[in-house]
Amino acid sequence: MAELGEFYRTGFFVTLEGIEGAGKSTALPFVQRYCMDRGWSVEITREPGGGPLGEALRAIFLDPGLELSVEEELLLLYAGRHEHLRRKILPALQRGALVLCDRFEDSTFAYQGGGRAFPIERIQSLSRWTRLPRSPDLTLWFDVDPAIGAERIRARNPDRLERESLEFFERARRVYAARMAAEPRRYRRICANGTLAEVEQQLASVLAECLPSPAHA
Amino acid sequence: MAELGEFYRTGFFVTLEGIEGAGKSTALPFVQRYCMDRGWSVEITREPGGGPLGEALRAIFLDPGLELSVEEELLLLYAGRHEHLRRKILPALQRGALVLCDRFEDSTFAYQGGGRAFPIERIQSLSRWTRLPRSPDLTLWFDVDPAIGAERIRARNPDRLERESLEFFERARRVYAARMAAEPRRYRRICANGTLAEVEQQLASVLAECLPSPAHA
Repeated sequence: MAELGEFYRTGFFVTLEGIEGAGKSTALPFVQRYCMDRGWSVEITREPGGGPLGEALRAIFLDPGLELSVEEELLLLYAGRHEHLRRKILPALQRGALVLCDRFEDSTFAYQGGGRAFPIERIQSLSRWTRLPRSPDLTLWFDVDPAIGAERIRARNPDRLERESLEFFERARRVYAARMAAEPRRYRRICANGTLAEVEQQLASVLAECLPSPAHA
Repeated sequence: MAELGEFYRTGFFVTLEGIEGAGKSTALPFVQRYCMDRGWSVEITREPGGGPLGEALRAIFLDPGLELSVEEELLLLYAGRHEHLRRKILPALQRGALVLCDRFEDSTFAYQGGGRAFPIERIQSLSRWTRLPRSPDLTLWFDVDPAIGAERIRARNPDRLERESLEFFERARRVYAARMAAEPRRYRRICANGTLAEVEQQLASVLAECLPSPAHA
């Protein structure tokens, strides 16, 4: 029998988080398959995205000539996140789907708050202002050693990672760890230093524990 | 002799405000000429704008298919305003120019707060969060009867104004009036119901009273 609270939330909202080279995108198809095998209709999405505003913002963020201040970046990120929830994530949850989102609000705390050292309280204050109508039910944190992550990125594209230093990702990683400590029920840590097979084994065990069946969500 | 406070602020920041059809843009060349005749170097700008982000946001705001929520609109407006100040307005003021800006923060309070009836306190809270580094020294409020403004717009382009009703502009006008009452030193009201000559006469009289000489600003 489902708990009473579950009747107020339909669908199941899963976010994938971690620094560059943690292997989120590589592991995503495994998570998707696992959830589908459990009977879920799965909707895959990513930030920024999910609507025409999100796509426009993606182009803005990818333009290296823009040189935004952190305040400007944060205001745009929350505008895009609000649209993403309103147009794509909430409708999918409301029709009972499981939403798999590659990066969500934790990335903002890790990258702008940790990496770029913008005050965490000010990010919290903007988050409260925006009043996002739903937060993730489960966050899979792909925790990779920043040096290992950097090696993976360099192997794929040697030009990347010049803009952000290893210390940047160390700071981002510490923010993920702090957020996990503050919200242990929502967060599950996946050690992402090993092989894909090792990562998938951990994912299977976490999902076996945390994933409700579609009928009860 | 200039007052002490003046040494902490260089340049002079003038904003033009008012609802649709108030005649701001028509009167702008007169204001520009008047300030130049008084010895000012004048920089003209408008919102949203002033940088690559502003221009990208202008395209987003002009896209009727986007249907943003008011929260999303506000976050984007403040992101663009922060960039506009940082990239264009502050540098111009710092080199001692007079900046003439067609719409600024008062428009957000009038349109989103008045017209769209979004809570004024929430706009104030987002404004505080953004910490804009400078506010206008003088705001010229072109106060037109909404019915007269609507007539002017219809004469220019019969398709406009279908989206916003007269009541929308009535509410926006009341917000301008309330902001003038709260900040009487910054605001000057120009009755904009009459001819351009009548408007220019009032502008000349306001500018004669409020415009410092470039040496003292």
